Amino acid sequence: MARVVVDVMPKPEILDPQGQAVAGALARLGIAGVGDVRQGKHFELDVDDSVDDDTLHRIAGDLLANPVIEDWVVTRVTREGAAR
Amino acid sequence: MARVVVDVMPKPEILDPQGQAVAGALARLGIAGVGDVRQGKHFELDVDDSVDDDTLHRIAGDLLANPVIEDWVVTRVTREGAAR
Repeated sequence: MARVVVDVMPKPEILDPQGQAVAGALARLGIAGVGDVRQGKHFELDVDDSVDDDTLHRIAGDLLANPVIEDWVVTRVTREGAAR
Repeated sequence: MARVVVDVMPKPEILDPQGQAVAGALARLGIAGVGDVRQGKHFELDVDDSVDDDTLHRIAGDLLANPVIEDWVVTRVTREGAAR
């Protein structure tokens, strides 16, 4: 089994109220130096080596993300998690 | 400004109903070869170079994650996004 990471983020032009809420809270906590904050979803899947990249992108586009408002990145993580 | 990624995941011993729902949906879509699925949160922060690692871990532990049930990983992404 291999580990695959899929990160799903709102498209840049889409308003991200959750990210803005975090940025606002950071200011109230007195933490300076942080500009834009964006929040999305992080998936970790254990997949057989038989699962090819097309299938992974189908999984991401059909199930994990909403292609209209979200972008995604699929990353195959080597067994030791080197690509994290 | 540097880009920092914070991935927040439920601790392994914590039940992950969202991940299980995705795994079940994959089976119904007829996609085989996928074992465990875990779902968490993915944050992307633009931070000044003045923000040190301790501050980043404080942000993650105090605001982005619930340390009781979640683990997190902080990754500094070089300007070209090499570490994605």
